[in-house]
Amino acid sequence: MTVDFAKRRRAALRELRRRKLDCLVVTRAMNWYYLTGFTGESGALVIGDGGTTLLTDGRFTVQAREETHGVRIEKQQGPLCKALGEYLKHTKAGATGYDPAALTLADWKVLRRAAGAKWRGVAAGGIVECLRMRKDATELAVMRKAAVLAGRVFESVLKLIKPGVRENEISAEIEYQMRKRGASGPAFETIVASGPRSALPHARPTGKRLRKNELVVLDLGAILGHYCSDMTRTVCVGRASQRVQGWYRAVQEAQAAGVAAVKAGVTCGDVDAAARDVLKKHGLETWFVHSTGHGLGLEVHEEPRVAREQATRLEPGNVITIEPGVYVEGVGGIRIEDDVAVRAAGSEVLTRVKRDLIEI
Amino acid sequence: MTVDFAKRRRAALRELRRRKLDCLVVTRAMNWYYLTGFTGESGALVIGDGGTTLLTDGRFTVQAREETHGVRIEKQQGPLCKALGEYLKHTKAGATGYDPAALTLADWKVLRRAAGAKWRGVAAGGIVECLRMRKDATELAVMRKAAVLAGRVFESVLKLIKPGVRENEISAEIEYQMRKRGASGPAFETIVASGPRSALPHARPTGKRLRKNELVVLDLGAILGHYCSDMTRTVCVGRASQRVQGWYRAVQEAQAAGVAAVKAGVTCGDVDAAARDVLKKHGLETWFVHSTGHGLGLEVHEEPRVAREQATRLEPGNVITIEPGVYVEGVGGIRIEDDVAVRAAGSEVLTRVKRDLIEI
Repeated sequence: MTVDFAKRRRAALRELRRRKLDCLVVTRAMNWYYLTGFTGESGALVIGDGGTTLLTDGRFTVQAREETHGVRIEKQQGPLCKALGEYLKHTKAGATGYDPAALTLADWKVLRRAAGAKWRGVAAGGIVECLRMRKDATELAVMRKAAVLAGRVFESVLKLIKPGVRENEISAEIEYQMRKRGASGPAFETIVASGPRSALPHARPTGKRLRKNELVVLDLGAILGHYCSDMTRTVCVGRASQRVQGWYRAVQEAQAAGVAAVKAGVTCGDVDAAARDVLKKHGLETWFVHSTGHGLGLEVHEEPRVAREQATRLEPGNVITIEPGVYVEGVGGIRIEDDVAVRAAGSEVLTRVKRDLIEI
Repeated sequence: MTVDFAKRRRAALRELRRRKLDCLVVTRAMNWYYLTGFTGESGALVIGDGGTTLLTDGRFTVQAREETHGVRIEKQQGPLCKALGEYLKHTKAGATGYDPAALTLADWKVLRRAAGAKWRGVAAGGIVECLRMRKDATELAVMRKAAVLAGRVFESVLKLIKPGVRENEISAEIEYQMRKRGASGPAFETIVASGPRSALPHARPTGKRLRKNELVVLDLGAILGHYCSDMTRTVCVGRASQRVQGWYRAVQEAQAAGVAAVKAGVTCGDVDAAARDVLKKHGLETWFVHSTGHGLGLEVHEEPRVAREQATRLEPGNVITIEPGVYVEGVGGIRIEDDVAVRAAGSEVLTRVKRDLIEI
């Protein structure tokens, strides 16, 4: 896809003016990628009316020149935040926004000292994150593909799921299949958690072998064209007990209610409540130990949070996950997760894989 | 391997006493793993004479109880750093060390406010990192295996390297082979960079196809039993020109000089200089755009830094990489990297793969 990075920078500049800032320092990799296309892992971006400057070290200067347009590349001398502070001092940067959540306390101290007493730093978090929340048609097209890719990978590894196979054999196959289908990699460490381990919402895959009548939670996502997908399905090796079937139906109903609640204007807290209330009705709410979902895009966890009492209102272009679950310690867990885009009218579920209980 | 986490905590406590600290808050995942075995991604550990407490959220409490021994698990209420501050206030924590490089400025403000005016926070970075630098025999045994595993994977994918193959096909195969051989995953995004792209020290693999007479830099590492390996080899598709052969020999000589310099008592700056001086002698020092190496262990980049003028002296148990390179913009790059353990007498190269130029 062709991305108009200059357009994104203009949107950032408009927001800076609105906040009466002369410039913004960008110290998070995904944010400088979003504004410039630079994919290096170390650097700092300064954007203002005077233009955009990227400070980075010798490992990345050639790459930065190749990946960006309309951006000055400066090779940093010494530690990054010292170089950044000196740059701000030297250029008399004026009121400079920075994100307190994207600087360590140590870096902050180095930056402030190097920038000098006259420097006016202004805490201004979330400016780029806010822009990133609203995906345009190009971004949505890529995210749709990333979601479909993850779904196809899931369907292709279903045939591996049987007693005796190890969790980490399945996760290795999942990540390999992603790459074979064009993903640059997994969006996060793939979860394959079986039996009692499925009750751990963030279990890492182990050498444990699947056994008959166990639940298996598979949570996977692919990065395609820089954008993440994220989906979860729970399958049963063998036949599910009545009790497990009951839990599964409750989670499925909660997930459908969460998805149905997604539309422009609704708060994230209301979406969370829509899913949570269903589990409450079934007496399962104490086993639902996390929030209903999260924003998705360049990162697998980004704004907005879809959690209790979150007042952020959904807007067209937001993409969020809806992923309620129940986790019964010592027994097992069930989670169903889809990626959902907010549209001008209603929503679009990007994940195209059935949600009914699969018994293998 | 069986890890004595309690022993590590006792070593941390000795260091706290030496620094006259009552307790330490640990806000970096690899550090709390090192001290407790907890592999969850979110939490904060408080360690002091009164015991060890792990605060974490509902996604990880069951997992934390299963993975740790002798650690109190507290389910956090509200945001992590708020809960951490309230815990410190409630327990009258006394002089509390924290790492300014492991807290964002935003988290620091939340923590300080919640901990209250009477709380005595003391900036004390690097305590656990220092312990981690000295690997014991068990850790070295695992790291040896992780290095050998990466070497075998490298040798097994050599047969794939030929004109027409895509960079990302090779990197996908590398990461798949790692897992097949028991790694939990790659230690970092595998680099396969060919032709002019090999001049970018940190290039991500792309869909570019290898062509005849191109250099290919392969930089790969595996995580095995939580520990990382990291190796680089550069191969030539076809015959290397005289000029490329000359560069290669210079890098090989520099790398050997760096490895030969590794022993207890030597500063990291001297190790860097040993490699760098060889490239200088060959007139290639301006093309060596990064430092000679870095510490390796639970993380792929950890202490000590092996860079210009670093005064840290090597000690038995340290494991570092030695990885000089030359990068000629528009032409190509060459890097050779091994993992080297400092022993009581001399050193041990963990990477067992030949370093001569491979022409395919």
